[in-house]
Amino acid sequence: MTVNPIAPTIPLDAQGAHHGFLKLPYSRDDSAWGSVMIPISVIANGDGPTALLTGGNHGDEYEGPIALQELARFLKPEEIRGRVIILPMMNLPAFTAGLRCSPIDGGNLNRSFPGRPDGTVTQKIAHYVATELVPSADVVLDFHSGGRTLDFLPFAAAHILADKSQEAACMEAMQAFNAPYSVRMLEIDSGGMFDTEVEEQGKIFVTTELGGAGTATARSVAIARKGVRNLLCHVGILSGAPEVAATIELDMPDERCFQFAMGAGLIEYLIDLGDTVEEGRPIARIWPADRCGTDPVPCLARRDGVLAARHVPGLVKVGDCVGLIAVPVE
Amino acid sequence: MTVNPIAPTIPLDAQGAHHGFLKLPYSRDDSAWGSVMIPISVIANGDGPTALLTGGNHGDEYEGPIALQELARFLKPEEIRGRVIILPMMNLPAFTAGLRCSPIDGGNLNRSFPGRPDGTVTQKIAHYVATELVPSADVVLDFHSGGRTLDFLPFAAAHILADKSQEAACMEAMQAFNAPYSVRMLEIDSGGMFDTEVEEQGKIFVTTELGGAGTATARSVAIARKGVRNLLCHVGILSGAPEVAATIELDMPDERCFQFAMGAGLIEYLIDLGDTVEEGRPIARIWPADRCGTDPVPCLARRDGVLAARHVPGLVKVGDCVGLIAVPVE
Amino acid sequence: MTVNPIAPTIPLDAQGAHHGFLKLPYSRDDSAWGSVMIPISVIANGDGPTALLTGGNHGDEYEGPIALQELARFLKPEEIRGRVIILPMMNLPAFTAGLRCSPIDGGNLNRSFPGRPDGTVTQKIAHYVATELVPSADVVLDFHSGGRTLDFLPFAAAHILADKSQEAACMEAMQAFNAPYSVRMLEIDSGGMFDTEVEEQGKIFVTTELGGAGTATARSVAIARKGVRNLLCHVGILSGAPEVAATIELDMPDERCFQFAMGAGLIEYLIDLGDTVEEGRPIARIWPADRCGTDPVPCLARRDGVLAARHVPGLVKVGDCVGLIAVPVE
Amino acid sequence: MTVNPIAPTIPLDAQGAHHGFLKLPYSRDDSAWGSVMIPISVIANGDGPTALLTGGNHGDEYEGPIALQELARFLKPEEIRGRVIILPMMNLPAFTAGLRCSPIDGGNLNRSFPGRPDGTVTQKIAHYVATELVPSADVVLDFHSGGRTLDFLPFAAAHILADKSQEAACMEAMQAFNAPYSVRMLEIDSGGMFDTEVEEQGKIFVTTELGGAGTATARSVAIARKGVRNLLCHVGILSGAPEVAATIELDMPDERCFQFAMGAGLIEYLIDLGDTVEEGRPIARIWPADRCGTDPVPCLARRDGVLAARHVPGLVKVGDCVGLIAVPVE
Amino acid sequence: MTVNPIAPTIPLDAQGAHHGFLKLPYSRDDSAWGSVMIPISVIANGDGPTALLTGGNHGDEYEGPIALQELARFLKPEEIRGRVIILPMMNLPAFTAGLRCSPIDGGNLNRSFPGRPDGTVTQKIAHYVATELVPSADVVLDFHSGGRTLDFLPFAAAHILADKSQEAACMEAMQAFNAPYSVRMLEIDSGGMFDTEVEEQGKIFVTTELGGAGTATARSVAIARKGVRNLLCHVGILSGAPEVAATIELDMPDERCFQFAMGAGLIEYLIDLGDTVEEGRPIARIWPADRCGTDPVPCLARRDGVLAARHVPGLVKVGDCVGLIAVPVE
Amino acid sequence: MTVNPIAPTIPLDAQGAHHGFLKLPYSRDDSAWGSVMIPISVIANGDGPTALLTGGNHGDEYEGPIALQELARFLKPEEIRGRVIILPMMNLPAFTAGLRCSPIDGGNLNRSFPGRPDGTVTQKIAHYVATELVPSADVVLDFHSGGRTLDFLPFAAAHILADKSQEAACMEAMQAFNAPYSVRMLEIDSGGMFDTEVEEQGKIFVTTELGGAGTATARSVAIARKGVRNLLCHVGILSGAPEVAATIELDMPDERCFQFAMGAGLIEYLIDLGDTVEEGRPIARIWPADRCGTDPVPCLARRDGVLAARHVPGLVKVGDCVGLIAVPVE
Repeated sequence: MTVNPIAPTIPLDAQGAHHGFLKLPYSRDDSAWGSVMIPISVIANGDGPTALLTGGNHGDEYEGPIALQELARFLKPEEIRGRVIILPMMNLPAFTAGLRCSPIDGGNLNRSFPGRPDGTVTQKIAHYVATELVPSADVVLDFHSGGRTLDFLPFAAAHILADKSQEAACMEAMQAFNAPYSVRMLEIDSGGMFDTEVEEQGKIFVTTELGGAGTATARSVAIARKGVRNLLCHVGILSGAPEVAATIELDMPDERCFQFAMGAGLIEYLIDLGDTVEEGRPIARIWPADRCGTDPVPCLARRDGVLAARHVPGLVKVGDCVGLIAVPVE
Repeated sequence: MTVNPIAPTIPLDAQGAHHGFLKLPYSRDDSAWGSVMIPISVIANGDGPTALLTGGNHGDEYEGPIALQELARFLKPEEIRGRVIILPMMNLPAFTAGLRCSPIDGGNLNRSFPGRPDGTVTQKIAHYVATELVPSADVVLDFHSGGRTLDFLPFAAAHILADKSQEAACMEAMQAFNAPYSVRMLEIDSGGMFDTEVEEQGKIFVTTELGGAGTATARSVAIARKGVRNLLCHVGILSGAPEVAATIELDMPDERCFQFAMGAGLIEYLIDLGDTVEEGRPIARIWPADRCGTDPVPCLARRDGVLAARHVPGLVKVGDCVGLIAVPVE
Repeated sequence: MTVNPIAPTIPLDAQGAHHGFLKLPYSRDDSAWGSVMIPISVIANGDGPTALLTGGNHGDEYEGPIALQELARFLKPEEIRGRVIILPMMNLPAFTAGLRCSPIDGGNLNRSFPGRPDGTVTQKIAHYVATELVPSADVVLDFHSGGRTLDFLPFAAAHILADKSQEAACMEAMQAFNAPYSVRMLEIDSGGMFDTEVEEQGKIFVTTELGGAGTATARSVAIARKGVRNLLCHVGILSGAPEVAATIELDMPDERCFQFAMGAGLIEYLIDLGDTVEEGRPIARIWPADRCGTDPVPCLARRDGVLAARHVPGLVKVGDCVGLIAVPVE
Repeated sequence: MTVNPIAPTIPLDAQGAHHGFLKLPYSRDDSAWGSVMIPISVIANGDGPTALLTGGNHGDEYEGPIALQELARFLKPEEIRGRVIILPMMNLPAFTAGLRCSPIDGGNLNRSFPGRPDGTVTQKIAHYVATELVPSADVVLDFHSGGRTLDFLPFAAAHILADKSQEAACMEAMQAFNAPYSVRMLEIDSGGMFDTEVEEQGKIFVTTELGGAGTATARSVAIARKGVRNLLCHVGILSGAPEVAATIELDMPDERCFQFAMGAGLIEYLIDLGDTVEEGRPIARIWPADRCGTDPVPCLARRDGVLAARHVPGLVKVGDCVGLIAVPVE
Repeated sequence: MTVNPIAPTIPLDAQGAHHGFLKLPYSRDDSAWGSVMIPISVIANGDGPTALLTGGNHGDEYEGPIALQELARFLKPEEIRGRVIILPMMNLPAFTAGLRCSPIDGGNLNRSFPGRPDGTVTQKIAHYVATELVPSADVVLDFHSGGRTLDFLPFAAAHILADKSQEAACMEAMQAFNAPYSVRMLEIDSGGMFDTEVEEQGKIFVTTELGGAGTATARSVAIARKGVRNLLCHVGILSGAPEVAATIELDMPDERCFQFAMGAGLIEYLIDLGDTVEEGRPIARIWPADRCGTDPVPCLARRDGVLAARHVPGLVKVGDCVGLIAVPVE
Repeated sequence: MTVNPIAPTIPLDAQGAHHGFLKLPYSRDDSAWGSVMIPISVIANGDGPTALLTGGNHGDEYEGPIALQELARFLKPEEIRGRVIILPMMNLPAFTAGLRCSPIDGGNLNRSFPGRPDGTVTQKIAHYVATELVPSADVVLDFHSGGRTLDFLPFAAAHILADKSQEAACMEAMQAFNAPYSVRMLEIDSGGMFDTEVEEQGKIFVTTELGGAGTATARSVAIARKGVRNLLCHVGILSGAPEVAATIELDMPDERCFQFAMGAGLIEYLIDLGDTVEEGRPIARIWPADRCGTDPVPCLARRDGVLAARHVPGLVKVGDCVGLIAVPVE
């Protein structure tokens, strides 16, 4: 039976605040006995629940890493009850490269669970998190945004689950996070996702999409910062009540929510994120990228709703997702 | 004397609307007798001024290409008096690659003027535009945005020039463009710029920065679309008056407007574009990208003003510009 | 049980002519929610057999894609009885790159069967074709040529199979295709091939090699165009009899048919495709690529026969196949 | 005054046969004190003219390197009168890489003359050949073919020159070479060419195009081999008369001989090299490379003639040359 | 059951000296029917043991390839009794590239055992060696050095094994090799290693580390050359006694022997290989690579001992091994 | 007149110790308004001479950067009289990449002088150093080693100059540096070198070669550390006398000192650095890298002497320098 070679450089169950690395041996052309060193902080104080907080699941999404770096630096053991495990840059090689996937093996960490102890670097990370960190957690918060190629309305999300009491706990946690938008999601193709792994272990799980375009703003980081503290209050690790404002509930009922480009070219959006659209009306149009004087090709909305996500780069390829239309819940 | 090998596939002085290419022979490994084909449209009707409208000077800036593709397709000869020459993707190789500079020769077109007829592909484009198109134009509008690595408040700009009557004409044209913000610029290092080339030929010149992050929004394209039509009205090519709204005038008086990163890492902005900042207060802070539990390094404002531009990617390198602070004009 | 995520954008069993895509979700650094869109046409009319026609199994072989693009465009439902499923560029990523294998994962599609629904992009294509398209087909025609690195005499081929009635049906189909040369092949190493997958499902299977050098000629495309229509006539999808001319039957009895370079350098062929050679006589000689004045190394024929395939690039590496010697059947 | 750092490792004016290198110092990341070693052979015997024979001007054209490797190895000093200088792979870095241009600096050697002694590697080669080898030569033969991206009818060519006696000498030398086709060329854009450099030094100059597709055939090499020996006989270095067969004279009177692709896609040739075409009739048609069921775009002949050159790769880009139509001379 | 496609071009069990290749078919973009040709020599004479001698397990380690090239060339059948199988460059693709791992598939051969007959190129090599060569051997010697990124004191090593009689035989063989240093190793993480594969087959196994820095010296090659002949004497393949000098025995008792960099930068070693160090004293210090005037970070020894290995490149990354401290055995 | 855009972030003439950057604006795809930030330290105290100390002229040579980082950090203003300007990583982009030349433009800084203010990044660095720093210096020390591909005996060197009093001053400074070996050099090809630029400005100049193989040892850094302090004592910036030990004087009288590889392959050195060799005896031999059982090619010494430099990588290319033979001076 292969053992996962990842080892932490700090104790994961000691009291106080400890900052170190998950050390993953990685022999390669430019370092025969090299390692991938994934930063980790653990802050613990007495009895209480354990929260696992992760950013950098995709390496080009920044609200999570920023909010978690700040939390790791400034959260004091005496403020809490229980334990907070923080991985601000879970897929470190992707994060370092500023890419969605790992430049080492191409791995999309969020499609690599439950991982393998003898697999690629990405699979080893997935396996370690799934077998060593998730089991000890009561609640898991995984930060996402659109990355370099998508931009989202800021929302927290929880999944529709077979176990309705688990689902209810997740929905409450999502409400506690209190992003400007909140989404109940039915995951169609959940294979390999961190979400699925955590939920199958029976944990409370919240995920987010807080912006995108390969960056973060003061406003989007503020949502992340408030959300993570709210969640820690909600589960009793921090004392006090979550700070709650209005949230807009969105639904994504079927695959007509997703719009794909049927041609390549220069994309012109005709509406912006949060704008309302009617079925059959154009969301965007695609101009040729190699000539002028010819007609653009329109992308017509496949349903009524609001534009909840869009493509970022000015050029679009055939098959790229150009829009996500969500339906506000009455 | 070397002749520039670029040749148009359409007449540049015929009446009506013509759409074609500037054909630039480019022999290379993957096409021994290949060419770079730069789209061009010319719309002409009777006597009147000539406007040269350019986008894609940098290949990852999209408001110009979109607004100019639309104009090339829908502007009718009978609507105008004079001539409109449109190059929506002036540095086509950069545009096709979605990059600021040409992937062929690394050339930054806006630092390649006046170009060379026997130089690199980028230098040949610069030389052709400078010697064949600019001389016949009365007014030149060159669209810019921040590209993939910068984001700007939307502004039109004109330069402070030695010839004050030329300067006044440029400022009026900038006002006619009527972007939400308007900037009078003193160019410190103008070597190689398209702006300088055009201005030295005595033409009216307007430039813009309309957003960035390697994309365009419905809102930013609307600014471009209105601006170009306003400018054509202003010079009498289109009839009617420009459509004018309020604009905020900004000044960039000295080099303290520019903020550079003194360390590398994960950047957290503490204010957003358009927000006010005071000298000595932090604009952003930079977290380490390879560890956690340590302090971030603040980027302190070097003067009072509003944040007019910022860095886009979540990771920052030493020496990157992290902010441009502009001063509102009373 | 993992489900293959590929979905067609058109119905595969509707009457008439439909043109669309096999949409394969492919999340990656440059498109978080992107897709590979593999063109497909289905032409159906009433009862009758189903033919599956595939090109672009290797991405740098062009007779198949050209003949199938033409067929997809011009074959009318009313001309046929039954159904024709056309995939002109089966390994689309390889085809787009002009390469034998997929640039996404390095996959050689013809060594990736039966594929995996949760595998690489190439494995997903293989799995979809094997499980969704082949089972509904009665006859499968897969076009090959030599690609960029090999050149072949134009032939159709069928395999020697354990099931002799299946073998006979395949041989008849190959004869109906009626290429200038026809080959009975004993596949030694058939692991992972599309051929093997189709034959193991009990289908009639014909393959070809119609030229090479990374291109197609008017003559080689004419062979493909005639062959595919002949085959459709043979199975009764098109009415009328195949158009038949003389064909030369070739045999490749053992591994002495294959010649490999034992040194690297500049290759000089001493005979051309279709020329006769005797055992022990030189087919080619290899000159050093880094000096002059020294002797070339000859490549001596390992058997009598005709030169049926050769290496294309002017430089050869140790271990490259420099010749295939086939034996004409009396 | 900078001195060209290239030095031969053999004497260039000694009697007998010498094989060595032009040694070009090239300091770089993977060899601080490395060199480019360009093979050269010199065969000399008594008084007589000097012939400079060059191959590998473009690195993916093979008839010249093969015929010249053979000549360097087997031509005996006692067979000749005068001197033969042989550079089978003039742009060695390009030749080693199998590319048209140098992978070191991107240099197209045939556009780099007269070169610079302190320039790039390619410019240094050009300068050395132009200043050290050409001046001592009476006749220069430079071998070309189509390379990886073009294919030609096999022809020798001489240029129309201002000096009619020089032109006549070149035309006679071309006739002596006696390729299947012979072309009188008016070079429009001769800047930087080796041809121009040699002709401006008043030498007899012959060039060729002998095939292409990044390879050579037994037939095309035979043309090269016969041609070079014929030329040496013609100038009296070898004794005996040239071996002469019929040749077809072709003319390329104007730029309508050149056909360029106005769209990108999968190219289908409707005629082959040597076939006759009429103005307005299609040479080829271009199918979309990303979808099926749509019409191809035809490439219509811009004049009557025979197809003398074509594009090789199966995919074509906007602006690629897809055909050269030559006019047989009565 | 898949068969490994590797085939030797020489008989492996014939008398005399034979030099050839292990031919591994490898179809790829640049050679559709190409092969990897791994050099092999077999020297056999009558009855006696079989030694398998391997170099190039990692492609940037040179003492083994040099000593084995010499042995393959100069060892005469009549000198020996039994058989010697020599693979000087076992992972040929890595060796050709001068890299630790294969550029084809990234494979670290020494982590790829027991391999797969239908796997990547590296896995096929591992499988062939494990199933076709190791079973017929009595003793296996595998040469290693530090490669481009590590440098070692020269030592031979044998493992602590469960089977103590096998362990004793290995230790005796290591002593016969007689490097300047000798190491008894307890392999913690032995998964995938060639060592483990050989030892599990019950063979005598010796490995080495003989220097590094991506090169070899006259001195380090002399150690290899003497060692391999000593070993052949020891097992009776060569006659005569091993040539034995003093050796220093080293132990590596626990993971405190390994030192890893906790920061990135410019590394300054304060001691050299073979120097003594005390726990808590600095081995090296790491300067920032992007600024000056700041303090370096020391790397403190985690135990007493001698420096047995170090990092080579002047720049170090977080997680790189910067030192191996071994303990001399009294 | 173009102005060099490089600006220091610290004053270059203020008293005390200042650490900052030479800021070089560098607009590029991944940072539109980015910069190259070259670390610089200036330590000044009262009147006295100015020393300019440079490392990282080539980016893979480490003794200079280490010794200068240490000096910059620990040299106190009160210890000195005059001024010390320290550039530990003069070609910062090359240093960051661990390469000899700049990855930005391929520039070899030591062949880029006197540079250009409007040239490439490397040319701008050369121009700034030549026009802004060298003129104010009295003595310049430039550290070199062999880099990744060469290894040297440790020596300091001064050039034979036309101005004999300048030459004498340089030789005295070299003697003060007091490396284990000292070399009087006649530079044959001095175009573009930093050395030449400094000497032509009439300054005292010392250069070194202190080891190589892309690394530094405790011993080689000790030589650098002692040498720089000795030199500062020699010119009176530090008080006290240089610490002097014996040095071996070497001469390199002609081009027979340089040995180049005439074939490619696996290089086996038969002697090590510092060993004596006789003309005609082998220094090394080159084994084929792609086969076994064949003879190696010897590299025979072209003169008597000691081996003063050698090639590092285990594989050698045609034209690589494999040895430098120096002659001890009686």
